[in-house]
Amino acid sequence: MDLRHSADLIEWDERVYMPPGGVTVHGEMSAALRRLAHEKFTSDGVGRALDAARADMAGADPDSTGARMVAVAARDYARATRVPADFVAEHAAAISAAQHVWAEARGKSDFSAFAPHLQKVIDLKRRYVSFFPPADHPYDVLLDDYEPGMKTAEVRHLFDSLRQRQVAIIKSVADRPAPPAEFLTARYAEHDIWRFAVDVVTAFGFDWTRGRQDKSVHPFATGIGASDVRITTRWVEGQPLALLFGTMHEAGHAMYEQGVGGEHQRTLLEGGASLGVHESQSRLWENMVGRSRSFWNHFFPRLQAACPAQLSSVPVAAFYSAINRVQPTLIRVEADEATYNLHIMLRVELELALIEGSLRVSDLPDAWNARMREYLGLTPPDDARGVLQDIHWSAGLFGYFATYTLGNVIAAQLWDRFGRLHPSRDSDIGRGDFSALLSWLRTELHRHGRKFEPQELVERVTGSPVSPEPYLRYLEEKYAAN
Amino acid sequence: MDLRHSADLIEWDERVYMPPGGVTVHGEMSAALRRLAHEKFTSDGVGRALDAARADMAGADPDSTGARMVAVAARDYARATRVPADFVAEHAAAISAAQHVWAEARGKSDFSAFAPHLQKVIDLKRRYVSFFPPADHPYDVLLDDYEPGMKTAEVRHLFDSLRQRQVAIIKSVADRPAPPAEFLTARYAEHDIWRFAVDVVTAFGFDWTRGRQDKSVHPFATGIGASDVRITTRWVEGQPLALLFGTMHEAGHAMYEQGVGGEHQRTLLEGGASLGVHESQSRLWENMVGRSRSFWNHFFPRLQAACPAQLSSVPVAAFYSAINRVQPTLIRVEADEATYNLHIMLRVELELALIEGSLRVSDLPDAWNARMREYLGLTPPDDARGVLQDIHWSAGLFGYFATYTLGNVIAAQLWDRFGRLHPSRDSDIGRGDFSALLSWLRTELHRHGRKFEPQELVERVTGSPVSPEPYLRYLEEKYAAN
Repeated sequence: MDLRHSADLIEWDERVYMPPGGVTVHGEMSAALRRLAHEKFTSDGVGRALDAARADMAGADPDSTGARMVAVAARDYARATRVPADFVAEHAAAISAAQHVWAEARGKSDFSAFAPHLQKVIDLKRRYVSFFPPADHPYDVLLDDYEPGMKTAEVRHLFDSLRQRQVAIIKSVADRPAPPAEFLTARYAEHDIWRFAVDVVTAFGFDWTRGRQDKSVHPFATGIGASDVRITTRWVEGQPLALLFGTMHEAGHAMYEQGVGGEHQRTLLEGGASLGVHESQSRLWENMVGRSRSFWNHFFPRLQAACPAQLSSVPVAAFYSAINRVQPTLIRVEADEATYNLHIMLRVELELALIEGSLRVSDLPDAWNARMREYLGLTPPDDARGVLQDIHWSAGLFGYFATYTLGNVIAAQLWDRFGRLHPSRDSDIGRGDFSALLSWLRTELHRHGRKFEPQELVERVTGSPVSPEPYLRYLEEKYAAN
Repeated sequence: MDLRHSADLIEWDERVYMPPGGVTVHGEMSAALRRLAHEKFTSDGVGRALDAARADMAGADPDSTGARMVAVAARDYARATRVPADFVAEHAAAISAAQHVWAEARGKSDFSAFAPHLQKVIDLKRRYVSFFPPADHPYDVLLDDYEPGMKTAEVRHLFDSLRQRQVAIIKSVADRPAPPAEFLTARYAEHDIWRFAVDVVTAFGFDWTRGRQDKSVHPFATGIGASDVRITTRWVEGQPLALLFGTMHEAGHAMYEQGVGGEHQRTLLEGGASLGVHESQSRLWENMVGRSRSFWNHFFPRLQAACPAQLSSVPVAAFYSAINRVQPTLIRVEADEATYNLHIMLRVELELALIEGSLRVSDLPDAWNARMREYLGLTPPDDARGVLQDIHWSAGLFGYFATYTLGNVIAAQLWDRFGRLHPSRDSDIGRGDFSALLSWLRTELHRHGRKFEPQELVERVTGSPVSPEPYLRYLEEKYAAN
């Protein structure tokens, strides 16, 4: 864990403060630390210790920290030892090259340059799958790296349940006149928005004695254990509120890590249960809280006071409508709450077809564009704004996209559950009081870290398996009222 | 080297950006990395590789990089393997406790609380010496950790040569009226001084693509290899120029590391030849350059333009006199160029007596105060401003202080040598042109890294062994003219 923490911190530094000349020496440092951590974790000694620990835990409460620690360690160990070191090196080299070519290809909007690298990554993913016991679907193995226990069939079922009603929501608001929103793109002073965002996440409960915020090209959150959790944000000219909502989003991730129980510190139970559960925390704070009427009833006067030139004459209702506007877009990272999942569905469906072999890489751009038309009614004018927009495939992150939608769905389940337990949820937020919400998340969810598998955890907290119902209801209510 | 670089970067982070909650997890990370690096370096495999490399190098040019690499590695290996791991752990625990008690004792000015911890550190230092072959003086072993090859007898001889003339210089200026200097303690805006300091070290040649500057409680420089070298400075109310001279000082250290040849990157020849040679670089840029008339003839109008309210009516001659004022002080870190070495002499003499056993810890405060009166004519009002002022002894840094004086002496030797080779030295600086100086230092000194032992290196560059003559002449000329 010390080696992993060290690599995490060095990679944070690389993205936040490293001078450009440091890129080689930093690469060597993090590669050495990751390799050492991997060697130490996959050693025979750890295997024997695990066998002994499993024997010790025979008869123990299966929900005890000890029993779960052994189960999680055994799972991690099995995954880490199945993949040969040669493959890991080949994969690392291939995605390093692929990312480089992808960045260039996106710049020139030239999919053909990227295609052979994507093919290589897909071939490697298939080989990766072959190291594991046969699953119902080869994609299950890939999903399992990000969402332990989640099956392809479950993801398909989830998307099938979402597709139709989500498209219907978008259609229902499509004909509404666009609210006035010139204040969303006006010129603001970065430090005014920065200070307001800091005030907001401080009110949320982000613990500054165990965290900090900096700037980076792509916002992210990283936890060096629960006692040092760092977030970043960015300032984009013309999108002043991206800094604010990005801060809420990353603070959601960070508060999850800050809330992991002290007894898990420096053990394999540290961190979040899965990417989906992690994303549920960022989405909950960014969307359910940060784009709600109650939130802005309290905070809009404060934002107006911070930016009077831009906002003093804007009614809170107009601001609320503007930040919740539904508008299909070509670009996933700019998508609103209602359309976001359609971007994800499209990607997951294409990924599945690529891994199954039913879609050829050369046919991918057409398949992408056809689905964009079907789901969002838009045709990308070029591949840069289409199939080349995301870094994930070049980075080997197959199986990752589904976790964004899972995050939305789980966030709504948690939000719904909390609302039932705490009828004063919205009025608390309307007073800027988030203490009951954070305290509930801490107690029910955060403190467990990786102790429970994500689907079990969701069921423990919400009383129901992962289900799209609360999410669809949340969207339908929000946009019916908007 | 990757592990050492990682630990260096994590320790930089600890002092610059770590949130307070991270202290435990950071301590675990750097301890694990230091321990792993030590284990790997002291392994039998490295010993066998060294034996083989030594055989390979038989007959090679002894000044070749290969031959020197093996010699330096063999020296480092011998030193690292002589000291038992148990001792290292006991020493680490003792200085951790001693530093904690020292900080409290200094706060209360209570030497008696610190005395038993100091005794323990001295006992450990004696044991440390016992792991090495008998030397002419036990203190030689301690010196050697910071200044390879330097002997106690040489340090004594150096101080004997300095003592009398240095005291005479101070006496000669003691009766001069104090120049007006209220502008040195006026209120300035931190960012004005910061920007000016950045402009100055940019002009020096600090490479911002391979470095950065931040703030920390105690200024320092750290190199993650030559391609990522970081400096820090601090803002002290009432001492506005401490930020400027501190920046020049740390930039001097940093430019040394940035100048180490690329072929030494990630090898044991990376970094500086010794602490003394390192300090020569910081002192040269801070004092010989940064407190010179030529420098301020060029830069004072720029500083006046940055801070007109404080400086527009101050003549450059008055500013020059004020920043070069000689005034005995109780506190080493506030000492001027003329009195600084006397602070060091006092400490080295007491250290020697403590290690020899001729001075008891209980008699140390009286011995300190007696020497302060003798050398500087001052009596500390309490131990906080006397024997307890420095962290070094509590941190186990016996043998370290002498390197500050060596730094001053070597800086003057380099300065003198460069002046003889480049008669336009002062007029170049008077035009803000430091390129010839930096280029000469790079070629003659920096690029070698640890390749040559410090005394050999000084002789190679200056044509003379380490000698106090240029330093004393520099001071005598400076203060005769002032």
